[in-house]
Amino acid sequence: MGDRFVSDRIVNFAPGPAALPEPVLREAQEALWDLNGSGIGVLEHSHRSRVIDDLFARTEADCRTLAGIPDEYRILFLQGGASTQFAMLPANLLPEGATADYLHTGSWSKKAMVEARRYGNVHIAASSEPEKFSYIPSRSDAQYSERPTYVHFTSNNTIVGTQFREEPVPPDGSWLACDACSDVFSRPIDIRRYGVLYAGAQKNLGPAGVTLVVIRQDLLERAARDLPTMLRYGIHAEQGSRYNTPPVFGIYVLGRVIRWLLDRGGLEATAAVNQAKARLVYDAIDASGFFRGTAREDSRSLMNVTYRAPSVELEADFVSEAEAQGLSGLKGHRSVGGMRASLYNAFPESGCEALVQFMKDFEARRG
Amino acid sequence: MGDRFVSDRIVNFAPGPAALPEPVLREAQEALWDLNGSGIGVLEHSHRSRVIDDLFARTEADCRTLAGIPDEYRILFLQGGASTQFAMLPANLLPEGATADYLHTGSWSKKAMVEARRYGNVHIAASSEPEKFSYIPSRSDAQYSERPTYVHFTSNNTIVGTQFREEPVPPDGSWLACDACSDVFSRPIDIRRYGVLYAGAQKNLGPAGVTLVVIRQDLLERAARDLPTMLRYGIHAEQGSRYNTPPVFGIYVLGRVIRWLLDRGGLEATAAVNQAKARLVYDAIDASGFFRGTAREDSRSLMNVTYRAPSVELEADFVSEAEAQGLSGLKGHRSVGGMRASLYNAFPESGCEALVQFMKDFEARRG
Repeated sequence: MGDRFVSDRIVNFAPGPAALPEPVLREAQEALWDLNGSGIGVLEHSHRSRVIDDLFARTEADCRTLAGIPDEYRILFLQGGASTQFAMLPANLLPEGATADYLHTGSWSKKAMVEARRYGNVHIAASSEPEKFSYIPSRSDAQYSERPTYVHFTSNNTIVGTQFREEPVPPDGSWLACDACSDVFSRPIDIRRYGVLYAGAQKNLGPAGVTLVVIRQDLLERAARDLPTMLRYGIHAEQGSRYNTPPVFGIYVLGRVIRWLLDRGGLEATAAVNQAKARLVYDAIDASGFFRGTAREDSRSLMNVTYRAPSVELEADFVSEAEAQGLSGLKGHRSVGGMRASLYNAFPESGCEALVQFMKDFEARRG
Repeated sequence: MGDRFVSDRIVNFAPGPAALPEPVLREAQEALWDLNGSGIGVLEHSHRSRVIDDLFARTEADCRTLAGIPDEYRILFLQGGASTQFAMLPANLLPEGATADYLHTGSWSKKAMVEARRYGNVHIAASSEPEKFSYIPSRSDAQYSERPTYVHFTSNNTIVGTQFREEPVPPDGSWLACDACSDVFSRPIDIRRYGVLYAGAQKNLGPAGVTLVVIRQDLLERAARDLPTMLRYGIHAEQGSRYNTPPVFGIYVLGRVIRWLLDRGGLEATAAVNQAKARLVYDAIDASGFFRGTAREDSRSLMNVTYRAPSVELEADFVSEAEAQGLSGLKGHRSVGGMRASLYNAFPESGCEALVQFMKDFEARRG
């Protein structure tokens, strides 16, 4: 131990922003100086230049290929993160007096509901709050309202380390809205189940500052109310995500990450790698009499592995000793405590092996 | 001619995103891989890590030093560009029924007014629209309403190439709001004249995707109405621009540009360089019987030099021949026509010399 496992860089378990693929970082370094031989860096090109036209078109096409997104869905690259989407979604699509159903699985769904209540009624169809959000409600747990406009869920919950294994099934006439920030494109997806899916890029797709929104074309015409221009999905769709100057660099990096995922074999292959990575850590937890997982087994996240040690003192030592050995960002969220290993798409399997080794070593010394 | 003037890169006259200082690009390349020896790249650090705490604190402190921004002003780094500020400003600060005065000097002030009218009354205190926005109204041209909440102006107009030489003087009890996107920190500023100043970074300060907002502390407590959380200045101020995941890379680059400006001697020195650069091109225009400037002389912008040739055919040839010789982005905005040379802070003087040489050469051949 004491080595750094991935080239000269630290093993980065941060919950987001998070590790990116090293080949993408190398490409981005080149592009800062000169984008694709254009003689101008990626930060410096007019967003209306042909080079950037091409970059946007390729990025969108690659997203469609990767996730099987058909033409009747629009792909938008926006700013403001999920926190902005929490409001944009109901502002655009929840008419006054109408009801949206939310599956309440943690802090993020709570924030999403706070914003939605400004615009319409919110019905909580299921909640794991009484059990400290330690599990994902099953399909049969959900009690939907009579005619919700949409059903919103947070596909992965970074803080507690839970993840939906399968989508909720909304009532007829309703559509799914998903905050997919922390597991977007980490496994195959049937986008046709969704009306709107949104994800800040900074966990699975790229840097902070760009938000991917996938929205069913027909919803764009249903604007529920007059809104500031920048909050309207319709405008961004109409203008190809360039109503105003978009976050070009973030979109560039996102595009390179998408390309990297395609080159690795797409979402099936990515899911297999993600499963293998998470299994390494969960197996180590389950084989140990020392560590214990915090999420219910059927709800465990492949993206954020949350676990505890026998005491908060041991947990603090674990985190600081790991940090000293080049395993960074393992401290759990303060509301859950313990440890959290975030293993997004770009996180390397070698990092999981290093963590497991460190866990065994720590348990042998302190258990 | 035919050489590329700045290292291996093209001379980039783009109106924004635009040229950045090459030493900053070199630093950014390093930081993508490893930020300040932390072993983790700038895109990959948790925005709540100590490294990013330091980065934000240093960036804010450097902004204060550069522009003499006192403690009673808050500095925010937001997303969404000026287009979002067009709405955020009145949404937060213009009470229903109150009036804001706008100086109407081009497309950007028009867009700003469209958003403001959603929230209160807009009074146009002066407009250069009848003269195609070719000049900046003088202080004595402005007819203010009786008690405007604020007076809004666009300090530099990229499309027409005009720039305020001095700020408007708002009526007593009112404060200045400024869209400073295209000339922020290009010359000394007395921020105490302002209530709110905002600027997308992508012209004078850094890459697209981060917006600098400087706001007088006391205004934060005047929220005019309930708003989605992400639209509230107060929340962003309270949370140190980290209510949600901020655009860390954009803030990093902005910080490096601010540092670069400080190292070059601050805003006085920057203004002198900017004046010298613009003078080179304006002098070439004025000395020529072939080219003519489009903005009125007393309103000429130091950031965007707009000019025409005797025919649209000659203009098209000028732009395409210049492009072929490595002088890129000189096409004027379609609403003005002709040529536009954007000479923001980071644009090198050598690029102006190259342009002047090309202009002389072109006139000799085609004049």
